[in-house]
Amino acid sequence: MTFIDDRSTGKRKLYLRIMKKTSRDKIIEVGAQIIHHKGYNHTGIQEVLTAAGVPKGSFYFYFKNKEDFGLQVIDYFTEFYFQQANLVFNEHSVAPLERIKRFLEGFIKIFESMDFTCGCPVGNLAQEMGDLSPAFRIKLKESVEIMTDFYACALQEARQRDDISAHLDVAETADFILTSWQGALVRMKIEQSARPLKNHIKFIFDTILVS
Amino acid sequence: MTFIDDRSTGKRKLYLRIMKKTSRDKIIEVGAQIIHHKGYNHTGIQEVLTAAGVPKGSFYFYFKNKEDFGLQVIDYFTEFYFQQANLVFNEHSVAPLERIKRFLEGFIKIFESMDFTCGCPVGNLAQEMGDLSPAFRIKLKESVEIMTDFYACALQEARQRDDISAHLDVAETADFILTSWQGALVRMKIEQSARPLKNHIKFIFDTILVS
Repeated sequence: MTFIDDRSTGKRKLYLRIMKKTSRDKIIEVGAQIIHHKGYNHTGIQEVLTAAGVPKGSFYFYFKNKEDFGLQVIDYFTEFYFQQANLVFNEHSVAPLERIKRFLEGFIKIFESMDFTCGCPVGNLAQEMGDLSPAFRIKLKESVEIMTDFYACALQEARQRDDISAHLDVAETADFILTSWQGALVRMKIEQSARPLKNHIKFIFDTILVS
Repeated sequence: MTFIDDRSTGKRKLYLRIMKKTSRDKIIEVGAQIIHHKGYNHTGIQEVLTAAGVPKGSFYFYFKNKEDFGLQVIDYFTEFYFQQANLVFNEHSVAPLERIKRFLEGFIKIFESMDFTCGCPVGNLAQEMGDLSPAFRIKLKESVEIMTDFYACALQEARQRDDISAHLDVAETADFILTSWQGALVRMKIEQSARPLKNHIKFIFDTILVS
């Protein structure tokens, strides 16, 4: 939030900025939730505004169009992931491979609380929009790179401690962990269970990293 | 196709049956193509009928509603996969692990010819419809089980020849190969390249199966 230093109207301007920020946040948060559940194309702007309790005019004040809104929703998802990952991956008293495991197991708990629905919002949008919008594709690629980096850093640390097999390439392994996790999340949705996620963790930790 | 044995009107009836079969096939084939590219919810019935060159009345002759049509499109995708898989997995002169590799590499060629778009139609629908339609979820689960069975049978044969590590569970490994492949196909769409698919094959064959 930016504060405007203006003695005569400062307070009013500050109030307006807070209101604007709050309306934008509401649209993004509610929109993210609906898109996560139903997908981007199946989500209507009016539906989001009604659920957020925000008048229609506000939408075009904050977003150029639906695509612009979608791109900002991706930023919101990436930010959520970033915050979750930071909490776990910055625990340097925990061994690096254990951090990766805790992170994935933490997501199993999150999905359990959601009855194993929705899946990875970034994976979902990659699936749905990868072919349809170059702007989405670029934004989703950036998001995936940020997500992969957390694994790559932890694996690099594990490499220095000789905790992973010498033949593994850190970047390729980080990429494979995230990619196959996203596949497991797709399967989770049709099985409505944690089984595919647990099978993923088993293969990554009992076979790949120690092979 | 069923032939009607009726001397007086047999020919006409047969002709009608061919037309009906052809119209249904056209709707399914064209619909499958559009759904594969754009997703189920983003595909309109009228759009499919226009592209198939079939009048609207035909749709409700063959399908109860859009969901029924979608379920029959899944059968079409499963049938396509089944045929492709049969070609490769029934080559018993080829070693079982080599059959799996050839099958996956064959799909890389298919996706290359499609500029790495679309991805796995069954994975896409699982992502899009898994939470939204119980009927889709059940049908997709059946489809995935058929797909996994090909890997499981080849792995079982490989186990008998001691071609895979003794500690691997055949069913879990078959499941992991397909699940992680579907994740790689999601990534392929945003990278527009075979890189994630090749990385998948590398991990499955150079690390997991020989660990």
